[in-house]
Amino acid sequence: MSSLRSYALEVSKKAKAASRVSAALSSAEKNRALSEIVRLLKRGKKLLELENAKDLRGAAKRKLSPVLIDRLTLTPKRIQEMAEGVRTVVRLGDPIGEVQKSWTRPNGLKISRVTVPLGVIFIIYESRPNVTSECASLCLKSGNAVILRGGSEAFYSNRALVSIYWEALRKCRLPKEIVSFVTTPDHRAVDLFLKLDDWINLVIPRGGETLIRKVAAHSRIPVIKHYKGVCHLFIDKEADLKQAVKVALNAKCQRPATCNAMETLLVHEKIASRFLPLLGQGLRRAHCEVRADARTRTWLPWAKSARKDDWGKEFLDNILAVRVVPDLETAISHIQTYGSAHTDGIITKNRKAARCFVEAIDSSSVMVNTSTRFSDGFQYGFVAEIGISTD
Amino acid sequence: MSSLRSYALEVSKKAKAASRVSAALSSAEKNRALSEIVRLLKRGKKLLELENAKDLRGAAKRKLSPVLIDRLTLTPKRIQEMAEGVRTVVRLGDPIGEVQKSWTRPNGLKISRVTVPLGVIFIIYESRPNVTSECASLCLKSGNAVILRGGSEAFYSNRALVSIYWEALRKCRLPKEIVSFVTTPDHRAVDLFLKLDDWINLVIPRGGETLIRKVAAHSRIPVIKHYKGVCHLFIDKEADLKQAVKVALNAKCQRPATCNAMETLLVHEKIASRFLPLLGQGLRRAHCEVRADARTRTWLPWAKSARKDDWGKEFLDNILAVRVVPDLETAISHIQTYGSAHTDGIITKNRKAARCFVEAIDSSSVMVNTSTRFSDGFQYGFVAEIGISTD
Repeated sequence: MSSLRSYALEVSKKAKAASRVSAALSSAEKNRALSEIVRLLKRGKKLLELENAKDLRGAAKRKLSPVLIDRLTLTPKRIQEMAEGVRTVVRLGDPIGEVQKSWTRPNGLKISRVTVPLGVIFIIYESRPNVTSECASLCLKSGNAVILRGGSEAFYSNRALVSIYWEALRKCRLPKEIVSFVTTPDHRAVDLFLKLDDWINLVIPRGGETLIRKVAAHSRIPVIKHYKGVCHLFIDKEADLKQAVKVALNAKCQRPATCNAMETLLVHEKIASRFLPLLGQGLRRAHCEVRADARTRTWLPWAKSARKDDWGKEFLDNILAVRVVPDLETAISHIQTYGSAHTDGIITKNRKAARCFVEAIDSSSVMVNTSTRFSDGFQYGFVAEIGISTD
Repeated sequence: MSSLRSYALEVSKKAKAASRVSAALSSAEKNRALSEIVRLLKRGKKLLELENAKDLRGAAKRKLSPVLIDRLTLTPKRIQEMAEGVRTVVRLGDPIGEVQKSWTRPNGLKISRVTVPLGVIFIIYESRPNVTSECASLCLKSGNAVILRGGSEAFYSNRALVSIYWEALRKCRLPKEIVSFVTTPDHRAVDLFLKLDDWINLVIPRGGETLIRKVAAHSRIPVIKHYKGVCHLFIDKEADLKQAVKVALNAKCQRPATCNAMETLLVHEKIASRFLPLLGQGLRRAHCEVRADARTRTWLPWAKSARKDDWGKEFLDNILAVRVVPDLETAISHIQTYGSAHTDGIITKNRKAARCFVEAIDSSSVMVNTSTRFSDGFQYGFVAEIGISTD
């Protein structure tokens, strides 16, 4: 354990030193390194496929599910996309050094609020190796250093990706510890890193709720996290019916397994008799399972009866909970009780109802007349995102 | 323990419900409640003094130090100042509902970033009862609910203050749980609150480093914190000498026990022979103890020899560590090694040196040609502050 502790300490200290170099880089220097990474990723397809094959053999032995094996697999096309992803990061504006606000006090004191790098970011993630490249490129662009702790099932793929990043950093005469990589498979290492708040500035767990809860419980370092995405959509009595059907189908069915997919639909009773039959056709066509309260089932008799624990559940599947509510207030209090503060929306033509909803719902994103699926860094024009906070 | 847990849970759930009411209040409603608090605080001087006397008797019994007893004491003048403090909060602009930025995406999606309340804030603090009023008034103004956990030595004073807040909230028909108060003296209660991340959104420990470290280690909730204020000032070779002496004396001697007072002075060797004798006169006049490296002592022979642990030490006293450095880079690396990321400054007429310093020093505030003492919410024009983050 004590050698594990000194390993974690050494990695973190070196990352801290590298973060100071990274913070001082000009936009041009950072973009030069990132362009080199793009070039080497494209050239390294063979190596990456070979190393990935080792992980895939391990996955077959450990009988991982087909979904997990698919997420783990690196094809030439996926490697190409990964390189394109880094190319996008090159094109991003530099997020560092932006003067957000500046003002002068009556006594002459001049004050500016300026964006600065965070320092060292510790990222813990599972299976998908492309997370390695996404996180490393974004952390470099934002003048930080990153410590990567990927899942053991992707160890060889991740190590090969990091070696390509190192090669590019070496060519640009930058310290390789800007992209640090935890090589020990020992799970206890993560807990040790989470205590090193003198050296690490931020922790981002990317993975299932169990992983995130464990990290939040053990970390002494600030954590960017959201446990779940239990997104709600409320169809107000003054909704545009056609728009409401379109948005609801998109929110549920476009990609049901994502954290910004709708899980529960709330419908105002005054509009239920006209809206629900229309929506029902679309849901059946999309083979979506519906779990509904008694009133909803008046219009969707084919729906299953919702159980108590279907409210607030993250199905991550083609399943939707539906409830008819008497008014806006009940919809709001349903979301306050069962929501996860990720993304919730209202469909209405009434500006007052929209304002009331936006003010009462304390979620990371609140949507008016649009799908919860738009809750995404890329859609917001931030180009990329590394984590979502519901705190 | 299980009854303590259900107590913590009940307090937190009620605070969460109250936070929703608080979040929906208009500026006028919040200011009405705050004005009522001002009125009742002024009228409640007798009650407050009586209750405070109980705490003072307890303090005498427990033989608290004169400094602590002074901090604990409520005089009519201090109560008047406390009421004036709340009056200032009334005059503050409403921090909620401000559209910081808004933009439209090519697909027509309109996006706004709007300031919103945090929810429930748990504040843990020691001795000074005026913290109770400061925190409660700021949390109300910002549309939050607060759970206050003051020190046992100020229990009666805090309870009396909270009862005045409750009376004002009741008169305005607002839930008293907007200002919640932990009544159990059991220390284990704090740890239980720190686990309730479903109900509490932010923790602010105000007190000594031991308290803050304990809170950070146990909390599952984000913590606003700074452990120490080890502030540095670097006098560059191109400093205006008269200004440098004035700023350094202000930074050290105006109020040595505050977290924004300078603890270590770094002096460029090219200016040391002219600057140090001038500064020395001022420091001796202010009875400031100096702990210096060998080169500094060439010019300040009366200074003590600095020990290794004087670098990075928070003296919180009329003591200053002084070191002569060969260049800007050494000054920066000294601050990176020993600083606490609170406030650090440079005195220079050279714009390039200033920019280099500002870019390399990753502190909450970085000062150019001004005193570290200006690192303060009020001085920045924010009117009030409830905590400083060095994360």
